[in-house]
Amino acid sequence: MTPSTTDPVAIIGASGALGFGLAVRLARAGVPIAIGSRDAGRAQETAERASAAIPAGSFSAHDNAGAARAAGTVVLSVPFRNHSETLANLKDALTPGQLLIDATVPLAAAVSGKATRMLGVWQGSAAEQALEMAPEGVRVVSALHTVSAASLSDLDHPLGQDVLLSGDSREDKRAAAHLLERIDGLRCVDCGRLEMARITESLTALLIAVNSRYKVHAGIHLTDLPDRLWE
Amino acid sequence: MTPSTTDPVAIIGASGALGFGLAVRLARAGVPIAIGSRDAGRAQETAERASAAIPAGSFSAHDNAGAARAAGTVVLSVPFRNHSETLANLKDALTPGQLLIDATVPLAAAVSGKATRMLGVWQGSAAEQALEMAPEGVRVVSALHTVSAASLSDLDHPLGQDVLLSGDSREDKRAAAHLLERIDGLRCVDCGRLEMARITESLTALLIAVNSRYKVHAGIHLTDLPDRLWE
Repeated sequence: MTPSTTDPVAIIGASGALGFGLAVRLARAGVPIAIGSRDAGRAQETAERASAAIPAGSFSAHDNAGAARAAGTVVLSVPFRNHSETLANLKDALTPGQLLIDATVPLAAAVSGKATRMLGVWQGSAAEQALEMAPEGVRVVSALHTVSAASLSDLDHPLGQDVLLSGDSREDKRAAAHLLERIDGLRCVDCGRLEMARITESLTALLIAVNSRYKVHAGIHLTDLPDRLWE
Repeated sequence: MTPSTTDPVAIIGASGALGFGLAVRLARAGVPIAIGSRDAGRAQETAERASAAIPAGSFSAHDNAGAARAAGTVVLSVPFRNHSETLANLKDALTPGQLLIDATVPLAAAVSGKATRMLGVWQGSAAEQALEMAPEGVRVVSALHTVSAASLSDLDHPLGQDVLLSGDSREDKRAAAHLLERIDGLRCVDCGRLEMARITESLTALLIAVNSRYKVHAGIHLTDLPDRLWE
């Protein structure tokens, strides 16, 4: 169930800052990337930009549904404003057994509020909304809310930070960790069940407040953890 | 407004694990501690235990109101179950200008729920409840939710982690940081307005989930911050 070295990964919302940063970092680690965008033309543009950054990378361009069909692992990285609509449009593209890594954050900015504030999501979190809306059997893991898009996109920037994972299956989290830890400087930490995404998603808002105070792109590192986090 | 080296600090709930750890760590740094407990006898017992741990420390024992009257800075470290009642009882003891550092976390454990889940607090967070209930002019700063009681109490354990502060006044946060950074290995980070306590308080629940997964006492360290956090 763990993606092999050559399995492609689809990134839905790869034209956005986080999605793009993830695409180039993963591609540099040798992962073929299916670039997804609402508009296939925009995806093509993004794939060209990514190729310019990582000439040895493998990028294909698709609309979101096409990208989701092209890979066993799908990263969902869209503004919360488009989260529900995107999932509805992916209903026929996602298939049971696929791993869906949801990086979406319900910031109040989605409704013209502050980016340091969260919206209440009826299901509890964006990730739990994804679990509800994705076809049954799609394996949802929540991740990547604390990794700054700017730091990811700046390929010379050493990351040295954690990715906080939550999900209802340990095996699914291990698969996500195995993939994301291919990016140098990222360590994945198991934060428990998917409902913990209510907390990890809110860390984006917290970091935005810290970033604005100190003019930085902060990340999170948990202290006092054992050396081996994934047996 | 910044507490001087010899100003005492009151700890309300010092018989609890976090309060006690804080008492001995601060005392070791030379801060006189007014130990507060609901029951003055229990406070006496706690003061003796603290003296045994830090023989050179200065500890006085009081009921909660007595402790609050004995210091310009008051740390509130009580179970959320007792938070509102404690603040009601402190109404006549707290005075305008005092700095109230609230470390309380509204875990669902307060109502026999899981310690990895949060309660919804009408005001938004325990800290905002404290601001509403404390006499006007008391300066509320939220802090200390991510520092493990076990690590604090284990005096040989190097801390090496951050304390996330939120509050509506930069000056009040600086005063709290100045105090808390007297504890070796703690770095205070300004996380914005008091409403951000909604997020920082929830980090206790997140860390409890991580601790249970890995059998550790994890803390938090923010990456990519500047060297100087308090001008």
